[in-house]
Amino acid sequence: MRVELQALRRRMEKRGVDGCLIMTDDFHGSEYVGGYFKSREYISGFTGSAGTLVVLKEEAGLWTDGRYFLQARQQLKDSGIVLYPMGEPGVLTVEEFLCEKMKAGQTLAFDGRCVMASYARKIRSALSRQGTDVCGDWDLPGEVWENRPALSCQKVWQLEKKYAGRTVGEKLKDIRSFMKEQKTAWFLSASLEDICWTLNVRGNDVECTPVVLSYLLVGESRVIWYVQRKAVCAQIEKDLEKDGIEIKEYGQVFSDVSRLPAGSSLLCDSGRVNEALWSCIPERVMVVDKKNPTELLKAVKNPVEVENERIAHRKDGVAVTKFIHWVKKKAAGKTVTERSAADRLERYREEQENYVGPSFAPIMAYKEHGAIVHYSAGEQSDASLSGDGFLLSDTGGHYLEGTTDITRTIALGKIGREEKELYTAVLRGHIQLADVRFLKGCTGGNLDVLARAPLWEKGYDYNHGTGHGVGYLLSVHEGPNSFRYRSSAKKGADCVLEEGMITSNEPGVYLEGRFGIRLENLMVCKKDGENDHGNFLRMEPLTMVPFDREAILPEQMTEKELSWLNRYHQKVYDALAPYLSEEEKEWLRKETAPFS
Amino acid sequence: MRVELQALRRRMEKRGVDGCLIMTDDFHGSEYVGGYFKSREYISGFTGSAGTLVVLKEEAGLWTDGRYFLQARQQLKDSGIVLYPMGEPGVLTVEEFLCEKMKAGQTLAFDGRCVMASYARKIRSALSRQGTDVCGDWDLPGEVWENRPALSCQKVWQLEKKYAGRTVGEKLKDIRSFMKEQKTAWFLSASLEDICWTLNVRGNDVECTPVVLSYLLVGESRVIWYVQRKAVCAQIEKDLEKDGIEIKEYGQVFSDVSRLPAGSSLLCDSGRVNEALWSCIPERVMVVDKKNPTELLKAVKNPVEVENERIAHRKDGVAVTKFIHWVKKKAAGKTVTERSAADRLERYREEQENYVGPSFAPIMAYKEHGAIVHYSAGEQSDASLSGDGFLLSDTGGHYLEGTTDITRTIALGKIGREEKELYTAVLRGHIQLADVRFLKGCTGGNLDVLARAPLWEKGYDYNHGTGHGVGYLLSVHEGPNSFRYRSSAKKGADCVLEEGMITSNEPGVYLEGRFGIRLENLMVCKKDGENDHGNFLRMEPLTMVPFDREAILPEQMTEKELSWLNRYHQKVYDALAPYLSEEEKEWLRKETAPFS
Repeated sequence: MRVELQALRRRMEKRGVDGCLIMTDDFHGSEYVGGYFKSREYISGFTGSAGTLVVLKEEAGLWTDGRYFLQARQQLKDSGIVLYPMGEPGVLTVEEFLCEKMKAGQTLAFDGRCVMASYARKIRSALSRQGTDVCGDWDLPGEVWENRPALSCQKVWQLEKKYAGRTVGEKLKDIRSFMKEQKTAWFLSASLEDICWTLNVRGNDVECTPVVLSYLLVGESRVIWYVQRKAVCAQIEKDLEKDGIEIKEYGQVFSDVSRLPAGSSLLCDSGRVNEALWSCIPERVMVVDKKNPTELLKAVKNPVEVENERIAHRKDGVAVTKFIHWVKKKAAGKTVTERSAADRLERYREEQENYVGPSFAPIMAYKEHGAIVHYSAGEQSDASLSGDGFLLSDTGGHYLEGTTDITRTIALGKIGREEKELYTAVLRGHIQLADVRFLKGCTGGNLDVLARAPLWEKGYDYNHGTGHGVGYLLSVHEGPNSFRYRSSAKKGADCVLEEGMITSNEPGVYLEGRFGIRLENLMVCKKDGENDHGNFLRMEPLTMVPFDREAILPEQMTEKELSWLNRYHQKVYDALAPYLSEEEKEWLRKETAPFS
Repeated sequence: MRVELQALRRRMEKRGVDGCLIMTDDFHGSEYVGGYFKSREYISGFTGSAGTLVVLKEEAGLWTDGRYFLQARQQLKDSGIVLYPMGEPGVLTVEEFLCEKMKAGQTLAFDGRCVMASYARKIRSALSRQGTDVCGDWDLPGEVWENRPALSCQKVWQLEKKYAGRTVGEKLKDIRSFMKEQKTAWFLSASLEDICWTLNVRGNDVECTPVVLSYLLVGESRVIWYVQRKAVCAQIEKDLEKDGIEIKEYGQVFSDVSRLPAGSSLLCDSGRVNEALWSCIPERVMVVDKKNPTELLKAVKNPVEVENERIAHRKDGVAVTKFIHWVKKKAAGKTVTERSAADRLERYREEQENYVGPSFAPIMAYKEHGAIVHYSAGEQSDASLSGDGFLLSDTGGHYLEGTTDITRTIALGKIGREEKELYTAVLRGHIQLADVRFLKGCTGGNLDVLARAPLWEKGYDYNHGTGHGVGYLLSVHEGPNSFRYRSSAKKGADCVLEEGMITSNEPGVYLEGRFGIRLENLMVCKKDGENDHGNFLRMEPLTMVPFDREAILPEQMTEKELSWLNRYHQKVYDALAPYLSEEEKEWLRKETAPFS
């Protein structure tokens, strides 16, 4: 059993607490969080980006989703913590587990700053019905955490208009127009990406997500940004002042919210504001609990952002294509491992102008490691790329011109018939989604099946969504758009797709212990004609990297699919060739030659 | 302006009423209703099966859906009633219209027996907020209706177990097990199809829907059926008694419900119980407002029902195929009109054993009439089938072995290139939905796009759902399963598809003033393998009628699509040939010959 778990249990006993709930959230409900907030990882040893830990006196459970089942099973071995694979038949939810295991008179504790208000409300209402106390005031993991990293406080920087496309003033106008519609005088946001988008600022407080720990309170005439003051230089403070934005200390938000005038109205998303802050809202303030308007506003990229994204993806395509050429043609005979390959790709990205850094931890997974959906090579596991087999490379970068996220599965040496058949099926799914023309009104839930059908036909599936929204130099995973077939308001299968939204398209197949295949492009939603039936839309691929023709069985593809692939490959060649060496160019020409 | 509308307005004035709401519902929220209930049709002249009429002092509006836009526009001409095409951009909903037009102090009246409780609640809450009174006690159209048909009271008959597959006792057991889960002592149902399904009875109180006007109250030990006693013969009363079912007079339900014991709990669907009955529920009865459990129970056909349906569809296929042969090969030179053609098809059906009657009013629509989605040939419009063009035939029958609903678009004479291209696109969509293998968990909303994508690619769409559930010798439209891409809890896009559900697959294309194409099969959902990824499902076509090869461009279809079509046509030939004349058989052999 993990010593950290034992230490937590001792602390629980000391505090008279029977259960402890530890989410993955920071104070802002971010998907990825800074080191200070990784309590769940510290106590459980599970390093995935999503998961909920419940520790009781005698047992402990960790809930995570399909991307992490294999990894969690490995990392939780001998930890004393049981894996609850979410969504599998017969698996209890966290709430069901708590209701079943906790008795009347017992107490469940959590840190209310790290649990979103809507979730805390759900837990509270389920447990209070059976007489279990719920206390949101204790950071118990924090009390036993030795050498906890400090709260991040990195320098804030500004994103110029030529990158952001719209000014802070224009964005505030849109927000205020939504507030007016909702008849609210105030809007409180705790979503880091939304706040940075609104203020055209970036930071570095969360690994791979250039955001600034802060809160934003927008009034009809005032705007207050609660941020660690020492992270903001005088010039930025002055610039923001011109847009009417006051700066106050990060922690000040709690008392300011508690002093909102009685009778006023506040727009605030209980799914994105933590319960500690939510509980500061005075009773006589009328709360309109709706999604942050900024979520949809920032998801619909403006024309400047879209044009920039094309540039970012061209540069990223150059880096990834150089890497693929190198790993297929040059790495043979050298000692290359998953980690050194990832380093090499990172160096190709660093050569590109305006490169900011990786948009998430690289997944460079050889052979059976590819079957672990979100694999991360550690010192122990770091495999040598020797012999035959698939290398699954899922990486991404931030540029001033936008954010990339690209997966290619690369054939090293010889691959077998089964690998080719499955690669082709995944590619067919990818293309069917990429090539569909659809009416405005469609959601990701309507279209997801296109990517899965060729795999379902063969009896395969992938236990993750087909695609997620992508931020502009913000989080690589952003809502509300997505492709997934199981309805889930939170995950956005019900979000109507709009022109300007950027979404990934990443079907895959995973054979445990053998190999994994995933093929991912980012796509921007574009207008494609209009008539009496409505407005038609279609996806334009942003990612510019060839698919591996050694793994494709063209005779298993339809003419329409091959036509898409040939057109795409032609575009890739035209976009990248000017930036490649003669040798690389010649290789790419062959790689992208049309199938007939 | 219609005189009926003027009469209603005079009555409204006399009663001091400013607005009158007239739905299409009978007392039971049925989709199709008996003559007694056709107030909306009487006042407005619009004969479609769906629509809501609002009459104010100075204006009147009718709301209907995409199936009926063309028809309503024609029928409302000079009526003094404005069409509000539902779902079109910028069109007010009924609620919005009422809120905008009705003032504080004014009164809206409707017949609470013909408005479902959940809808009445919505209207009431929207209008009461602005001080408009709502009164559900007046049947104003009834007060001015001359020669109103009497309430139907047709003989009740029983469906033998060899047709129903399960006994009344078994069905009550399932219902009670659901009641137990919901911790309810009583279950009140007003849904005619559900009641007839539960009691294995049928009647004839609604045209084309063999149901019995009645209510059902199920207790933990008692079951009471409220029905017009004179419709039930002594033998049936005795048989039902054996299953513990008491019979009481139809109208008795109101006082019985009002005397439910205080403190007891009642399962009841406010979407399927009228507001007059709902308001009888005593305040101290705890209501669990959920969907009727019988809705899902009856949608999942049992193995006996499925086997019977195959027989019904074989017989129906013989009738429709004989008709197609006749209309294509024998009708030339004869005076055949839409109505006489429909009569001919009905005669072919009548020749089949155990035929009960049509499952809906036949749609036999030549050339431009085919563009009216739910066209019904009247004396005036009845077109002669002369010259070239498409005949769209959408008809269905009830048999003791089940219910059919089949659309074929038949090429008479020569048809043009555009007709063939669109026929082929509709057929491709039909096949893509018919041939998809999918994981259990999918909804109709997930799969609908498969049927639309080939049309969207060409810039066409159809303004109706792709498919609806079908009852067993009950309503030809039944929930909760459906195929549609716009989410709508009521219409069932969110219903997870299950083995045994029967759903139609009917994409189409409609060119106003020119022609319409629709191709419809019923399909039953079947298991198709199981592995670590879950349970796979696939659709089996029940309908056995050839597609018109004169309208198919095989070179525009994929190999997978052609392979499905060839297999389907082979099945059709094998199923029908034994029941056809030599001439018909020879023709069918050619019609169903494989495309290569």
